[in-house]
Parts: sequence; C-alpha cells; structure tokens
Amino acid sequence: MPMIRETIVTSISADGRVHIAPLGVIGEAAGWIIAPFRPSTTLDNLAAVPFAVLNHVDDVRIFAGCLTGRRDWPLVADAGAVPRLAACVAHEELAVAHVTEDAQRPRFHCRVAKRVTHGGYGGYSRAKSAVIEACILASRLHMLPRGKVESELAYLQIAITKTAGPEEAEAWRWVKARIDGHFAALPP
Amino acid sequence: MPMIRETIVTSISADGRVHIAPLGVIGEAAGWIIAPFRPSTTLDNLAAVPFAVLNHVDDVRIFAGCLTGRRDWPLVADAGAVPRLAACVAHEELAVAHVTEDAQRPRFHCRVAKRVTHGGYGGYSRAKSAVIEACILASRLHMLPRGKVESELAYLQIAITKTAGPEEAEAWRWVKARIDGHFAALPP
Repeated sequence: MPMIRETIVTSISADGRVHIAPLGVIGEAAGWIIAPFRPSTTLDNLAAVPFAVLNHVDDVRIFAGCLTGRRDWPLVADAGAVPRLAACVAHEELAVAHVTEDAQRPRFHCRVAKRVTHGGYGGYSRAKSAVIEACILASRLHMLPRGKVESELAYLQIAITKTAGPEEAEAWRWVKARIDGHFAALPP
Repeated sequence: MPMIRETIVTSISADGRVHIAPLGVIGEAAGWIIAPFRPSTTLDNLAAVPFAVLNHVDDVRIFAGCLTGRRDWPLVADAGAVPRLAACVAHEELAVAHVTEDAQRPRFHCRVAKRVTHGGYGGYSRAKSAVIEACILASRLHMLPRGKVESELAYLQIAITKTAGPEEAEAWRWVKARIDGHFAALPP
C-alpha cells in the first residue's frame, strides 16, 4: 500500500503566481506523486514550472481556508523555485522527475530535493484530524450522498466538541458552513 | 474549549524506572494538564517525581504498541529529569506546577520548561489519525457497546485501506487484534 499524506502543495505559474492547494500526495520509493484532477491550477502550474513544495502545517485553518475561499496565507520565498507557507512546521521541496500522462488525472512523479524542519509541531489532535476529514468530505460533495456526508460529520463533530481549541473550532465552522450551504442550495 | 493533544507521556518513578503512556493532555494558558485515571503508573510517577515529557511522534506504532503490550521503545536521556522517546519529532519538557486532587482523576497542572524540535515530521495522514482513533476505542472497550466499536472501526478501516503505509498498517493490525481478542473472549 502506498502511504498518502494530506498536505498543502504550493506551485507557481510561468509568470510567477503562487497557488496554494490542499492535496493528498502518494508516497513512492523515489519520492512523492502529485496527481491533480483535470482541470486544476496545480496541474497547469506543474506542467509549466516543474517544482512544488509540500507544506506540512499544524494549523488546520489553512486546509479549511483553501476549501472555503480563504487562500491568502502568508508565504516565504526561501524554499527554492517555489515559495512555502510561513506557517509550515516542516516542508519538502520537490522537483518533477517524470509525468505519467492521463486524460483525467496525470501523475507527476517528484523527487525530494530538500527536507526542512521549522519547528512548532505540537502532536496529534483528534480535532485537527476531524477538520481534515471534513475538508475531504467538502471537496467531494458533488459525488457523495447527503446522508453519508451528514452522518460522517456528526461522527467527526464528537472529536471537535471534545478536543478542539479556538483554531480547530474556527476551521470547523468554515467547513461546516460550506457543506451546509451546499445542501441548502440544492433543490428540495 | 480547551484543546486536547494526543501524545506519548514519559514519566519516571522515584527509583528511576521510565513509564511510557499514550495520553490526551489538556491545554490551558499556563501549559498542559495531565489527568490520569486512578490507578495508573503515570499518576504514581508524577506524584513521586513532578516532571514529565510530552513526546510528539510521527510513528503511530508507538501509540498502538503501548496499548498492545509493546512498550519497549528506545529512549534518550537529553530532556532533563525524564527521558524522551528517541523517535519523537518534537518534545515538551514539563514541570508539575500544582495538583488539583480528585478521587478518580487528579489533574496535574504543568508548565512547559522547554520545547525542542528534532525534525522528521511528515504531515497529516488519515491512516495515522485512524490508528489514533482506534487506540482510543481500544482503551475504552470496557465501557463501549460492541456495535459502536465495530461500526467505528469499519469507518476508520476506509482511511487505512486508502492511505496507510507499512507503519500504519502494522499499527492497525496490532490494535485490531487487541479489539478482536477482547470481543472473542467475551461470553456469547
């Protein structure tokens, strides 16, 4: 089984615009595979500029924010070709080694040029994990039955109620509002 | 809401024996509260030697191992009074500031004497989070209905199947075997 890590990928366009996207990256012996669905900005960027940064953050508001229109997170330009998030506790600088073309989901096989630790990792949090799961649900609303989404959210809410601090509570509210808004906009 | 972090607490007895225990610690402005149930070795140790280390690890086999009789994880004695896990990606050195006595669950209010980052944090993993959740279920088998445990395990299994690498798969097998063994030993 390949391991998948949920992370924030930064990439840049040919004219240097930075894109921030939460993505699951797939481990392989030589590094990581980034496999964005078509169409996506990350895909266009990697095709134009074959570098990316995996930003490992402790603050799950960045995941929740990217899914809810809050993409303006501070960047730092010390990570090679592509900026990294200022908030990351560790990052990995990737270079695309080769691409497996696919009509729906090309795979960018990347080697790790550099791993850097910044500090500030505070350990596991059930609430942070629940926010990540809710973000994944929110990104799949168009293909999941409403009942499944609502029952999984109810389960995840337990960890939020029991273990969230202010950051996780805020991230949860953002994602929950996005999901509630999606269902409220559907025809009855 | 206070934030809770799931971490591995190391503590020592008066004669210097190290105890390794997965625990949720409760955040407060001045530091962390460790609230072990009576009876427990962590509680006895903190009462005898008022120091502890929060070990933040990436390898969830340490959580799963501690719950399944595999407590022999390498230690390093560079973290003050109490050793830390060699595997930790960051640790916090705690000193007990005061204790709120309780018949069932005393609260050791601790201040953070030092935070140290070691590196090696690799980002979120749904499989790692699923292992942590399964560990929490495994620690509460005596008070949870079998149906609830089995349905939550089935839900968590999805993240394992989709995103586990070898470490997470091994940790999951350990916890799953512990839970299956518990139910198999119950009268029909």
